[in-house]
Amino acid sequence: MRRAIERKRDGAPLEPHTWEEIVAAYVTGAVDDAQMAALAMACVWRGMDVDETVALTRAMVASGASLQYPRDVFVVDKHSSGGVSDIVSLVAVPLVAACGVRVAKLSGRALGHTGGTIDKLETIVGLRTTIEMHDFVAQVQRVGCAIAAQSEAFVPADKRLYRLRDHTATVPSIGLIAASIVSKKIAGGAQAFVFDVKCGSAAFMHDVHRATELAQMLVAVSHAFGRRARAVVSDMNEPLGRSIGTGIEVIEARDFLRGEDADARVREGCLQIAVEMLALAGERDARASAVGAWHSGKAYEKFVEMIEAQGGSRQAVENMRIDARTHEVRAAHDGFVAAIDAVALGHAAREWSTHEATAGVRVAMRVGARVAKGDVLATAYGAHANAKRVAEAFTIAATAPAARPLSYATL
Amino acid sequence: MRRAIERKRDGAPLEPHTWEEIVAAYVTGAVDDAQMAALAMACVWRGMDVDETVALTRAMVASGASLQYPRDVFVVDKHSSGGVSDIVSLVAVPLVAACGVRVAKLSGRALGHTGGTIDKLETIVGLRTTIEMHDFVAQVQRVGCAIAAQSEAFVPADKRLYRLRDHTATVPSIGLIAASIVSKKIAGGAQAFVFDVKCGSAAFMHDVHRATELAQMLVAVSHAFGRRARAVVSDMNEPLGRSIGTGIEVIEARDFLRGEDADARVREGCLQIAVEMLALAGERDARASAVGAWHSGKAYEKFVEMIEAQGGSRQAVENMRIDARTHEVRAAHDGFVAAIDAVALGHAAREWSTHEATAGVRVAMRVGARVAKGDVLATAYGAHANAKRVAEAFTIAATAPAARPLSYATL
Repeated sequence: MRRAIERKRDGAPLEPHTWEEIVAAYVTGAVDDAQMAALAMACVWRGMDVDETVALTRAMVASGASLQYPRDVFVVDKHSSGGVSDIVSLVAVPLVAACGVRVAKLSGRALGHTGGTIDKLETIVGLRTTIEMHDFVAQVQRVGCAIAAQSEAFVPADKRLYRLRDHTATVPSIGLIAASIVSKKIAGGAQAFVFDVKCGSAAFMHDVHRATELAQMLVAVSHAFGRRARAVVSDMNEPLGRSIGTGIEVIEARDFLRGEDADARVREGCLQIAVEMLALAGERDARASAVGAWHSGKAYEKFVEMIEAQGGSRQAVENMRIDARTHEVRAAHDGFVAAIDAVALGHAAREWSTHEATAGVRVAMRVGARVAKGDVLATAYGAHANAKRVAEAFTIAATAPAARPLSYATL
Repeated sequence: MRRAIERKRDGAPLEPHTWEEIVAAYVTGAVDDAQMAALAMACVWRGMDVDETVALTRAMVASGASLQYPRDVFVVDKHSSGGVSDIVSLVAVPLVAACGVRVAKLSGRALGHTGGTIDKLETIVGLRTTIEMHDFVAQVQRVGCAIAAQSEAFVPADKRLYRLRDHTATVPSIGLIAASIVSKKIAGGAQAFVFDVKCGSAAFMHDVHRATELAQMLVAVSHAFGRRARAVVSDMNEPLGRSIGTGIEVIEARDFLRGEDADARVREGCLQIAVEMLALAGERDARASAVGAWHSGKAYEKFVEMIEAQGGSRQAVENMRIDARTHEVRAAHDGFVAAIDAVALGHAAREWSTHEATAGVRVAMRVGARVAKGDVLATAYGAHANAKRVAEAFTIAATAPAARPLSYATL
């Protein structure tokens, strides 16, 4: 192991079999956390090439259980690198399923200021996110989609390694990140993946070049496993949707699917990912199919069907209301919304929604909007909500900010 | 701690108080080996500036006990970064003391292919290298010199950190190396240090630039502690002396001090360090003093006095003889000695001298010597000695090699 660390430290790539030996030894304890931490830092320093990342991914997959679908069942999965007001999974999963393409979405929990799809779904009364894996596979085939928490049996090596990297400030290595993400997708059993790599002040990647590098690596590693894959590098300098919280985001997704609340940015963000998922499944006119399933209400019905299959009910989701204790935040002067601090709002909403599931923030004025003194910028909801924190997240400037694209690259 | 690792990882220096907190927390276990290993790798990557190295050194010294001499007693110490046939301490310590300058030499053991002064001294029957620290201080004042093993009570943080760095391939950081070396010297209590930084194929530093960087850092950190310091960057591409082993090196040092075996390279190597030590003590004509003490036999008498003070005897050291089981190694053809692999000879001699204290190798033909087929190149001594291994360490070429200086820099 020491020789492997030296090699990486000195800038040489490690052989695939070396990565396999390292992961196997790490799982048994023959390689300890100190050596692994030094190697991880050397990876942050020196980088990892595609072959190394594939080998690490393969070794991590081998450390645990994997799902398998019948050969003739084509299943798509998606992954987001984490953002604020990222309701894409809640919308795109039933939307794609409503177009006849099966989606098996394995999700994580909230991390730092970013939300977690599992935490959001759990605000629907009765809904289960911990599903026996054979029930999950069966639901994907029967209903056409399912969203569940990652099984603990998947990729135990990644769990241990991720904890260590978090503890030792060795997270930001493209290779280590990609292996962590792709290993869990491979274990999940789908044949095609769409990676939504967020980029900006409220994403884990702040830099478009680094985010694009990660996106390329995710696609390359997936291809090495014989999977179809696409990646979108999308903006996360402001909340994607209007709602920030857990239940409040479910409500936004529900209303979007019912055609009630079509904010342009969130619509485009959801459709783009859905279209990539459909395209991977071979759908010819993916955009038209997606829009059709949305407008026809089929996507919403699939959403309800999925909720029911997981123990929730139509009534439970349709009865959800935003917390009634409102705190309006108004513009202190005329101007333009120049920036919205999504990190601050993400942290605030996460705190408040631990008390009430439908507490959080709803943004009324998006980045670029012209506002007059006294206009409502946003509303904070919940007994513990604090309008001042929300007000501080808004920057009002004399001039309009430059428009920012929703996505920087698709590959 | 994670923030400190991030900062170093991203290329920023850490504040002095941060280094102090890290070492204190590492000693108590609040910072674990994994975090320390990641930080160490980040130091290998990003380097450490003088202020950081001073802060780390100070924190390490504070982790354990220190020696103190009376204010009016001026004491010099020396350090070698480790080499093969490096008998400088055995010679220079009594030589400098014979000139009236007190020397308190705290030494380490053999490491890898390099010899350790403590292991060598212990081949003198009766001699103690583990000395109570107040007896050590008293001996330095009474006899003028002493050579003892580092006390276990000195710099416990370095012991733990060095083991970790060795385990995690994070040794080669100038700052970490310098802090490790200087902290032990500071704890040893001397007011002036000469650092002999070896450089070449058989040294830990292979590159003159890196060795010079280390030498500069050692001097700068010592100055920050108010100590006088000098450093020599000296060649370690071949054995310094003719003998390689433990007892066999004591015999070479003894014979040198008695004026019997004055190989030019080892003489110059020993005198240079002795001269720097004397110069640090303010000796005006340091070279003349050193040569005088050598030629007059005073240095040898001081050597014997030191041995006696530590439980050995004149008889014990004068009766030492090289192991009688000899294996001569002869030149296979005419030519010049182009290279002698000191690493190979260091490993071989270390193995053999675990069986007999005076086993080892004695080199007859140095690098650059013209040899005829059948000339004795070297002799291997000891029951387990192996002439073939010694023969393989010699490269005989048709042309003479370029002459290599003994030292590359003095600062």
